[in-house]
Amino acid sequence: MELFIVIMAGGVGSRFWPRSKERKPKQLIRIFGENTMIQDTVKRLNGLVENKNIYVITNRLQKLRIKEQLPDIPEENIIDEPFGKNTAACIGLASIIIKQKNPEAVTIVLPSDHLIKNEEEFQKCLLNSAKFAYESRGLVTIGIKPTRPETGYGYIQFDEKEIENNIHKVLTFAEKPNLSTAIRFIESGDFLWNSGIFIWRVDVILDELKKYLPEHYEGLLKIESAINTNDFESQLTQVYGQLRSISIDYGVMEKADNVYVTKADFYWNDVGSWEAVYEVSEKNEDGNVIIGDVYSEKTYNSYIFSPRKFTAVIGAENLIIINTNDALLICNRNYAQDVRQVVDYLKMNNRTDLI
Amino acid sequence: MELFIVIMAGGVGSRFWPRSKERKPKQLIRIFGENTMIQDTVKRLNGLVENKNIYVITNRLQKLRIKEQLPDIPEENIIDEPFGKNTAACIGLASIIIKQKNPEAVTIVLPSDHLIKNEEEFQKCLLNSAKFAYESRGLVTIGIKPTRPETGYGYIQFDEKEIENNIHKVLTFAEKPNLSTAIRFIESGDFLWNSGIFIWRVDVILDELKKYLPEHYEGLLKIESAINTNDFESQLTQVYGQLRSISIDYGVMEKADNVYVTKADFYWNDVGSWEAVYEVSEKNEDGNVIIGDVYSEKTYNSYIFSPRKFTAVIGAENLIIINTNDALLICNRNYAQDVRQVVDYLKMNNRTDLI
Repeated sequence: MELFIVIMAGGVGSRFWPRSKERKPKQLIRIFGENTMIQDTVKRLNGLVENKNIYVITNRLQKLRIKEQLPDIPEENIIDEPFGKNTAACIGLASIIIKQKNPEAVTIVLPSDHLIKNEEEFQKCLLNSAKFAYESRGLVTIGIKPTRPETGYGYIQFDEKEIENNIHKVLTFAEKPNLSTAIRFIESGDFLWNSGIFIWRVDVILDELKKYLPEHYEGLLKIESAINTNDFESQLTQVYGQLRSISIDYGVMEKADNVYVTKADFYWNDVGSWEAVYEVSEKNEDGNVIIGDVYSEKTYNSYIFSPRKFTAVIGAENLIIINTNDALLICNRNYAQDVRQVVDYLKMNNRTDLI
Repeated sequence: MELFIVIMAGGVGSRFWPRSKERKPKQLIRIFGENTMIQDTVKRLNGLVENKNIYVITNRLQKLRIKEQLPDIPEENIIDEPFGKNTAACIGLASIIIKQKNPEAVTIVLPSDHLIKNEEEFQKCLLNSAKFAYESRGLVTIGIKPTRPETGYGYIQFDEKEIENNIHKVLTFAEKPNLSTAIRFIESGDFLWNSGIFIWRVDVILDELKKYLPEHYEGLLKIESAINTNDFESQLTQVYGQLRSISIDYGVMEKADNVYVTKADFYWNDVGSWEAVYEVSEKNEDGNVIIGDVYSEKTYNSYIFSPRKFTAVIGAENLIIINTNDALLICNRNYAQDVRQVVDYLKMNNRTDLI
C-alpha cells in the first residue's frame, strides 16, 4: 500500500479578517505560535509519508506563498485550480494526478487549516484507516468524539457494530444542527463530529465520482489526457469553467454505500472563527489572550492581537481585538461569525486593498 | 476700563491620550469640528478685545504649535513658562506683564480647553463681570448653574443676596464632591460649578498675591525688574525654579474676602475626559459618535475615532475607541479617567515616542 496526502488549501477565510486576506487566508497565517496553519498541517504528518507523496491543492493567489511556506514539498506537487469549485472537483483533480503515480494509491485528503493535537494518535488513526480503505475499497472518514453540542460542525451517525479498530459503517451525514438537535446527537452517543478528513484508494474515489458525479468524471478524463502536455493548463481551465461547484460530502459521501468512519480520539478543532481561536488558546489569569504590544486593565475574557502598534485596553470584556497594519477589528466574541459581513461590506465598496 | 485676556494653555492633557501628547495636548487638537480647542477659545472672544490684548501662557513644548494655530495673536503675547508651577505662578506672570501696559487693566483669565456654547451670553457675562471687577476691586469668578450632580467639577457656594446683575458674594469654594454631597449641593440651590474663569484688575490680583503668597510676589518682582532686558529668560527660569506649585484657587481665592461669583447662563463643560467628549458630541440613532473610516454593526453608545485606518466594530457597547497613527485606545466609557494610567505606564517604560 502506497500512501499519498492531499492537503486542500483553497479557502479564502473571510472570518479571519483583518489578519486573513484573499491572498493570505487562514491557512497561511500564524494563528498559533511560530508556524502557519498549513505548516503545522504538514509537520503533523511528519514520518507518515515522504514529501514527494504530499500534494497541496490551492489557487493562483495563494500558490507562491504556499511554495514559500512549504519549501520541502516538491514544487510540482503544489497544484493550483483555475477556479474554486468546491471539494468534489478538488479531490477529483488530485486523484487523477496521483493515479499517474500509482492507481492503487491510498490518499488521505485533509484540510490545511484545522487544529489537531496528539500527533501520535492522529497518525495511528490515519494509518489504520488507510489500511482499511486499501483492503475494503471503502470511503473512510474520520469522526471526532464530540465533547459539547457544537452547532458549527457537521455530524456523522455511525452504526454501533464495530467492524475493526474503531471503524464503523456510516448511517447518515448530518448538516450543522441547531442546539436542541446537537444536544440530542450528543445524548444518543452515536454521532461524531465530521472532521473533513477522507481516506480512500484513488481508483475507488474515481469510480465513485464516475457513478455519482458523471459530469465531473468526464471532465477529469479530459484533464487526465492532457497531463504532461502543453495543453494541460488550458484544458484544466476549460473543464473547471464548466464544472458544478459541489462538495464531496453532498456529491458522493451522502450517496455512496461503502462509507465508513473511524472514531478518533485526538483533539480536533476546525478553528472556524476568532471565537474558536480564543477558545483553543491559552489564557492568562484574567481569561485574556494577549499577543503583541498591549497594556490592559479591568479587561477580561478577551483576545487581543496587536503585534506592531501599541494598544491600550481598559474595561473591555469578551472582545476580540485584531489590530493589523492596515485595519482594526473590534468584535464582541458572541458575534465572531459576523466578521464575514465586514469583508462583504469592503467588497461592495471596492476596498480591495483591505481584503 | 481696558480689558485684557489671559488664556492658560499649559496643560498636558494625559486623559486624552492617544490623541493628546505632551507636545500636543487637548487644547491643540481638533476634538469638535474644524478648530482646535484653543482656536475655539480665541474665536469665542471675537470682538471683546483686540488681538494685541490677548495673551497666552504656555510652555516651551507647545509654544510653536500655539503660534501656528493662532497666527493673529502677536507673537510676543505668547509667553512660555520654563516650568509648569500651577495657576498662581501663571497668573502672577501674566499680571506683571500686562501691568506694563496698563496697571489698572482688567484681565479675564480663562482655560484654553473648555467647551462653551452661546457666545453672546458668554461675552455679556464676561463684560458685566469685568465692569464689576474694575469698580469694586473684587476678585470675580464665573459660576455655572449646575444641571446634574457632577462629581468631576469644583463647586462655589454663593450668598443669596444679589449684589447686581447676577453677581453674588462667594461663601465657600468646594473641591470635587462625592455623589451624595453633589446631590446635596444641587438640591440646596446655592452652589454653582466652578468654571475656572477669573476676572480682576491686575493691580488687585498682584496685591492679593503679595498678601497671601508673598514668596510668589517677591519672585514676580524680580521677574518684573528684568522685563525688556537680556536677563529676562534667566531671571524667569531662576525664579520659577524656586516657586511652589500652587493653584490660584487654593493660594488666593479661598482665603481672600473680596471674592464674587457671576451666575452664568451659557453652556459650559470642561471636557475633562473622553467620556465628556462623548457626552457633549452629537450622536447618531444608535447613540454612536463616529469619526473617520469606520464600519459598525450592533454597536451602541460608543465613541469611535479612526481618521486614517479602517476600523470595523461589531457588537460593542459603551466603548471609546481612539485609533491614531501610533497607538490604539479601547476604553469602557465608565473608565475614561483611567486613560491617565496608560500614560503613566508608558512613562514608566520609557515609551516617550508614544506620549
